[in-house]
Amino acid sequence: MSSRVGVWMVGGRGSVATTALTGAAAVAAGLAEPTGMVTMRPDFAEASMPELGDLVFGGHDVVETPLALRAARLVDDGVLPVGLPNALGAAIEAAESEQRPGITGHDARTEPRAALGRIVSDLSSFKSRHDLQKVVVVNVSSTEAPVDAHPAHQDPALLMDALDRGLAVLPPSALYALAAIEVGAAFVDFTPSVGARLPAIEALAEAHEVPVAGSDGKTGETFMKSVLAPALGARNLKVRSWAGYNILGGGDGAALADPERAQSKLDSKGKLLEDILGYPVEAPIRIEDVRDMGEWKTAWDHIVFEGFLGVRMKLQFTWEGCDSSLAAPLLLDLIRLMALALEREERGVLSELAFFFKDPAGTREHSLHRQYEMLERWVLQRVVA
Amino acid sequence: MSSRVGVWMVGGRGSVATTALTGAAAVAAGLAEPTGMVTMRPDFAEASMPELGDLVFGGHDVVETPLALRAARLVDDGVLPVGLPNALGAAIEAAESEQRPGITGHDARTEPRAALGRIVSDLSSFKSRHDLQKVVVVNVSSTEAPVDAHPAHQDPALLMDALDRGLAVLPPSALYALAAIEVGAAFVDFTPSVGARLPAIEALAEAHEVPVAGSDGKTGETFMKSVLAPALGARNLKVRSWAGYNILGGGDGAALADPERAQSKLDSKGKLLEDILGYPVEAPIRIEDVRDMGEWKTAWDHIVFEGFLGVRMKLQFTWEGCDSSLAAPLLLDLIRLMALALEREERGVLSELAFFFKDPAGTREHSLHRQYEMLERWVLQRVVA
Amino acid sequence: MSSRVGVWMVGGRGSVATTALTGAAAVAAGLAEPTGMVTMRPDFAEASMPELGDLVFGGHDVVETPLALRAARLVDDGVLPVGLPNALGAAIEAAESEQRPGITGHDARTEPRAALGRIVSDLSSFKSRHDLQKVVVVNVSSTEAPVDAHPAHQDPALLMDALDRGLAVLPPSALYALAAIEVGAAFVDFTPSVGARLPAIEALAEAHEVPVAGSDGKTGETFMKSVLAPALGARNLKVRSWAGYNILGGGDGAALADPERAQSKLDSKGKLLEDILGYPVEAPIRIEDVRDMGEWKTAWDHIVFEGFLGVRMKLQFTWEGCDSSLAAPLLLDLIRLMALALEREERGVLSELAFFFKDPAGTREHSLHRQYEMLERWVLQRVVA
Amino acid sequence: MSSRVGVWMVGGRGSVATTALTGAAAVAAGLAEPTGMVTMRPDFAEASMPELGDLVFGGHDVVETPLALRAARLVDDGVLPVGLPNALGAAIEAAESEQRPGITGHDARTEPRAALGRIVSDLSSFKSRHDLQKVVVVNVSSTEAPVDAHPAHQDPALLMDALDRGLAVLPPSALYALAAIEVGAAFVDFTPSVGARLPAIEALAEAHEVPVAGSDGKTGETFMKSVLAPALGARNLKVRSWAGYNILGGGDGAALADPERAQSKLDSKGKLLEDILGYPVEAPIRIEDVRDMGEWKTAWDHIVFEGFLGVRMKLQFTWEGCDSSLAAPLLLDLIRLMALALEREERGVLSELAFFFKDPAGTREHSLHRQYEMLERWVLQRVVA
Ligand SMILES: NC(=O)c1ccc[n+]([C@@H]2O[C@H](COP(=O)([O-])OP(=O)(O)OC[C@H]3O[C@@H](n4cnc5c(N)ncnc54)[C@H](O)[C@@H]3O)[C@@H](O)[C@H]2O)c1
Ligand SMILES: NC(=O)c1ccc[n+]([C@@H]2O[C@H](COP(=O)([O-])OP(=O)(O)OC[C@H]3O[C@@H](n4cnc5c(N)ncnc54)[C@H](O)[C@@H]3O)[C@@H](O)[C@H]2O)c1
Ligand SMILES: NC(=O)c1ccc[n+]([C@@H]2O[C@H](COP(=O)([O-])OP(=O)(O)OC[C@H]3O[C@@H](n4cnc5c(N)ncnc54)[C@H](O)[C@@H]3O)[C@@H](O)[C@H]2O)c1
Ligand SMILES: NC(=O)c1ccc[n+]([C@@H]2O[C@H](COP(=O)([O-])OP(=O)(O)OC[C@H]3O[C@@H](n4cnc5c(N)ncnc54)[C@H](O)[C@@H]3O)[C@@H](O)[C@H]2O)c1
Ligand code: NA
Ligand code: NA
Repeated sequence: MSSRVGVWMVGGRGSVATTALTGAAAVAAGLAEPTGMVTMRPDFAEASMPELGDLVFGGHDVVETPLALRAARLVDDGVLPVGLPNALGAAIEAAESEQRPGITGHDARTEPRAALGRIVSDLSSFKSRHDLQKVVVVNVSSTEAPVDAHPAHQDPALLMDALDRGLAVLPPSALYALAAIEVGAAFVDFTPSVGARLPAIEALAEAHEVPVAGSDGKTGETFMKSVLAPALGARNLKVRSWAGYNILGGGDGAALADPERAQSKLDSKGKLLEDILGYPVEAPIRIEDVRDMGEWKTAWDHIVFEGFLGVRMKLQFTWEGCDSSLAAPLLLDLIRLMALALEREERGVLSELAFFFKDPAGTREHSLHRQYEMLERWVLQRVVA
Repeated sequence: MSSRVGVWMVGGRGSVATTALTGAAAVAAGLAEPTGMVTMRPDFAEASMPELGDLVFGGHDVVETPLALRAARLVDDGVLPVGLPNALGAAIEAAESEQRPGITGHDARTEPRAALGRIVSDLSSFKSRHDLQKVVVVNVSSTEAPVDAHPAHQDPALLMDALDRGLAVLPPSALYALAAIEVGAAFVDFTPSVGARLPAIEALAEAHEVPVAGSDGKTGETFMKSVLAPALGARNLKVRSWAGYNILGGGDGAALADPERAQSKLDSKGKLLEDILGYPVEAPIRIEDVRDMGEWKTAWDHIVFEGFLGVRMKLQFTWEGCDSSLAAPLLLDLIRLMALALEREERGVLSELAFFFKDPAGTREHSLHRQYEMLERWVLQRVVA
Repeated sequence: MSSRVGVWMVGGRGSVATTALTGAAAVAAGLAEPTGMVTMRPDFAEASMPELGDLVFGGHDVVETPLALRAARLVDDGVLPVGLPNALGAAIEAAESEQRPGITGHDARTEPRAALGRIVSDLSSFKSRHDLQKVVVVNVSSTEAPVDAHPAHQDPALLMDALDRGLAVLPPSALYALAAIEVGAAFVDFTPSVGARLPAIEALAEAHEVPVAGSDGKTGETFMKSVLAPALGARNLKVRSWAGYNILGGGDGAALADPERAQSKLDSKGKLLEDILGYPVEAPIRIEDVRDMGEWKTAWDHIVFEGFLGVRMKLQFTWEGCDSSLAAPLLLDLIRLMALALEREERGVLSELAFFFKDPAGTREHSLHRQYEMLERWVLQRVVA
Repeated sequence: MSSRVGVWMVGGRGSVATTALTGAAAVAAGLAEPTGMVTMRPDFAEASMPELGDLVFGGHDVVETPLALRAARLVDDGVLPVGLPNALGAAIEAAESEQRPGITGHDARTEPRAALGRIVSDLSSFKSRHDLQKVVVVNVSSTEAPVDAHPAHQDPALLMDALDRGLAVLPPSALYALAAIEVGAAFVDFTPSVGARLPAIEALAEAHEVPVAGSDGKTGETFMKSVLAPALGARNLKVRSWAGYNILGGGDGAALADPERAQSKLDSKGKLLEDILGYPVEAPIRIEDVRDMGEWKTAWDHIVFEGFLGVRMKLQFTWEGCDSSLAAPLLLDLIRLMALALEREERGVLSELAFFFKDPAGTREHSLHRQYEMLERWVLQRVVA
């Protein structure tokens, strides 16, 4: 049996995916430090998670831009160091040979069964071709528009029946999740799209005994909120308003410029402050597509809080991050953690991974340090036991 | 026996002291919320700490500005609400009648024994005049210049002997601490001055069975550091530099403009990042006196960190706070907590109060959320037990 | 003949109006400096403009909140100093007695002729009651939604005919402008609403020999743009993107939360960068209503520019302003300048006042220092000549 | 006669010098736009200034790092584009062959006459070797510590006499200036060092009929001050305080970390606000060496101003610039302008170039737009005449 772990990235030719696979190869080759990877902290040293060099990458995408070209563009944008993609040509070519055409929204609407079948077949052949016992499927494709509610979302049998009847009840992200579950792969929603977050699909994950986790990787502004809000709360300062403005370019900026999709992202951010502070806060968020920003994102947050005797004070911050550089190491963490979850035969929603997500499935715990403790407890207790 | 608790403020006519006593009276009278007071959070509801209305205020100062006048100025500066001091005239007058002339640096150098004696006598008569069983002395006077090391600082006997011989080995803050210990009062260093932080004085606190805590109230930039640095650490992001610039006015700005005193403040801030992150960080801090800022302080911090594959990113924040509004509720917390410590017969350095201090005595734990857990454990375990 | 000048404020009970009239009285009484008033700079000392004490205030509004109450609220919000409205009770009462019910959008749509007639009659009686030779009408009422184009907008005869026929072709702001022109009063658009900015109305101003000026007072972010963009241009630095985000509360914030009205405001901001720099710039602007901000506004702008050899650099600013405190002195400037224009028998659009406006009528000059030079030339040449 | 112009850079191996010569070659070769060069704006198209391709570069330095290596480091630091130095190898080698050992502070103190002689001889041979009619010497070497006043600074004869007697009255920068004047070359002080700014040396420039200009290139925070302060002034807003904090690395950061040298830089910044606004402003400035910043500089400025009726408002900005990218194009502008000045036989201090300097020689005009007008007038009037 192979100690290698299969990693199947939906959106496999995107920025996050390309950065993750190139970075994994770089760290494995000793060319880079695992900076930004949480599971590489000494705290987690005892846990038996796969080495980055043991990951085998493949993926689905709806575009055909070669990974090597995509990596070259990431060099231009300052995400990957000059020269790195060349040094890792073999790893990139290996991943290239495992890219398959993904399913589109149109496919999902018009022939959902066939689409699902195609994904299942791609995953199965990936698994057997590399003799992989464990596969983790991660969704890092473009954020989808929100989906209308449908009774079939509540019940596994209704859902499979609706698909058989060719009904357009699921977006691609959910079909990818279903396929993963079907082949016994773990599934991670790194985007705010539906993915596995429907009662019917979560039930299927339980039934098929696979772990799922999500959703929406927490990289920038929300990370800051999950750090600052608990701290202001601990000091009993009263947050009066918290306005956030994000400017970003890249494929993601363009996708989120579409107001409908932005909504799906904003919803996953909005719940958080009230959950942490215990009272509603006037907290508008805006996302602005500024093409010129390329792979970079700047968030400005303006926080007004009240102190003793009603005095108003302010905290403002600007966060200037390279989104893919922040997301990729977390994605690698999630892959390693899901491999551990497969090892431990976890099934259903793994809420202990809340640390990584803007909209954590299975919990309303949004305070970063509590999420870290949840994570530590989950990773370490099992080692001990 | 009186349930009232005596509060003796060194620097009793300063901004923090005046805000604290006015605010305590306002909350007690139902005119204001206890916003900014940590001990008023539901987490601590079970602990038996004194009500704000049970505090009796007095203090030492070296100026004679009436408290009412000082309060009026704090109204002008936006620290106290318009009309509040008038509504609380009786409380302010009561505290006024308990102000006594403090000891100066000159007194401490030229006749330390007499100075000490005078403080002890003021404290004792305060205690008996109000029939107080518990007194908490808090130092909120101007920050002193750092003090030269002396062998007498290491040993109680040597220290008392040096004082008897009239040697200039202690600054006023330490004499105030000694006096508190002598009369069985708890002592809190809210400033970065020496106070009780000499081995000899800490030993005396143990011997006299009084609790001491300190030092330097954590209100603004350091609070932010103790929140953000652990979060960046949890994400395994590597902090490359962290430059901080503080502009402030008021009495405090002027005192800290004196480079020697600033040093004492900066030292207590500098140790922190390395303690939290585990590696040294280039982290200059500057304090600038801008008189026009009045009671307000703005801190700007510029943090460069490295993410995956060496990509440099940035976090900047500005913190615009009213220092006394931030400090006063914490001071009231400390008073309530030290009353509890007296009740519990704690003795010596109470490191569990690290949450409140820039330079916590007795521990190197600087992470805010861990400090909160320490505090919670200390306050609640005893109630439970 | 009276040396006094009539000032009629549309939106006379709003923040800007109340601040302007209270401030004029305060400066006239020697209780305040004319800080923020451009025409009080030594540069303009020679020009014969009315004293603030010679202004007689009246106005239209659609609400009935007494000015004294409105002023009290402005004290609470930190716009007016504590005690000032009381000290100026007589001036406020005098203005109160000259407030009249304004016309609503409904009035303008359903009976435009009657509405116009009512305004004309109010203005005429104000003029004769105070024996005023000069009256300046300023629109500081809530921003209206943009108006659909109509052929009658192009031609005076068509326009008057449409009104006679009861057609809904003009919003209230334009009816106020028409009325001013009819009674020989100067008219200033301080808002982005239509006001006098239709060819037909501008032609009528020419014909009736009254000066008009506008539009949309330039107080915050746009002021900064008109300062920084020319400077970056002078250095031949290439602006790549300029994202602006404004959070504001107050009546104005609520009005602009309405996306349609916001559009009218955003349009007047958008033209500017290209006019100054000579090339199109990716420059999104957002306005966010945050009620908690009250009378305050914070704008954050994020500017990316390219320097030598394509290096990207950044300028970010936050502007934290009290809108009415910025607007009121400019309004008083405009009143003084329009009195001068009446004196000089200027007629039609007075483009020389571009300095004061986001969307200056009659010119595309947006560079602040060039606008200042235009203003200076206009004010002084006439004195000289 | 050659149309080529000699450019002699003191500090010829530094960041600014290397960026300037590489950039000039890049623009000449059509590989880059002249972004950041003011003299390339259409406004100046008519003036007859040398083409960048006609510049011949040489210089003095006290280190021997090859220009090619220095350029490679500037690529790593993001100042020069990847690949550019290689593409321009010939130009870099040509400049390399014209680098000569500079004089040190020690040389200037111990044998000033010999030091001066050596520079004169290097300049003369450069001139004749390339058959250059015009040479411009620019000082872009490390900032020197301020110099003690000496009577010889006031009078040319006394000065030459003191040098003959071997007195240590001049720092290297002034000897470089003297040498330039002696060989008939124009001299530009791009640093805050003494250079030509002594009455005796300015008189010698007049006498030898060469133009001199300075001092201290205006690239970042001061540029912003010279833009924003006039604008706030034009609006009659009262600046209450203006605190500036600069963090920078590189050779320059290290040099300025030395408090004495920093002083020389800060002095040249401090005079400015009062000159512009007409009243003194509390305006502290700090410079912090943060090695990790490399070639980048971030300035944060915090400006409090008063508006109508005393309301306090704020403007904050952060300027994130690459210093050499900002300085190099201005240096090339100055070279072109000084070639024009030589052509026009200007002599002595050329105050019309104030636009480029933090501490402009010969004028107290600090407002950027007025400086631009001065520049335009000087450049164009002569062409017209
Ligand atoms: N980078 C971050 O910080 C971050 C944080 C949280 C979430 N995310 C999410 O991660 C996702 C990826 O971000 P990115 O920057 O790599 O975006 P990207 O645009 O570079 O990549 C997305 C890829 O998904 C592909 N794709 C689109 N539809 C698909 C489909 N139906 N099937 C398969 N592939 C499809 C696209 O062709 C593209 O190659 C986005 O949804 C983003 O919102 C990113
Ligand atoms: N406000 C904050 O956020 C904060 C945070 C941490 C620490 N502190 C510290 O708290 C202290 C008080 O701050 P503040 O703003 O009230 O300052 P302040 O200047 O308003 O008050 C200090 C008072 O101490 C008095 N004093 C000086 N020397 C004395 C002596 N020898 N004996 C008795 N009184 C003396 C002064 O006369 C003055 O009334 C300062 O040392 C400050 O550094 C404040
Ligand atoms: N404050 C600034 O910096 C600034 C700058 C540029 C433009 N403006 C514009 O100035 C205007 C006034 O701002 P404000 O802060 O005083 O707002 P505000 O809401 O306090 O006042 C507006 C007033 O107009 C009245 N009004 C509404 N419709 C009316 C009508 N049909 N006839 C007569 N009155 C009517 C309202 O009842 C209200 O009293 C706004 O349109 C705003 O966009 C303000
Ligand atoms: N970059 C900017 O924005 C800017 C703006 C204004 C002024 N300046 C000034 O320009 C100068 C150069 O800046 P830089 O970033 O290139 O610095 P740098 O440290 O990279 O270069 C300075 C060079 O001067 C050389 N040098 C030192 N002493 C010398 C001497 N006696 N004779 C000859 N050479 C000598 C050094 O060896 C070094 O190579 C500095 O003084 C700086 O203050 C720069
Ligand atoms: Na203070
Ligand atoms: Na440098």
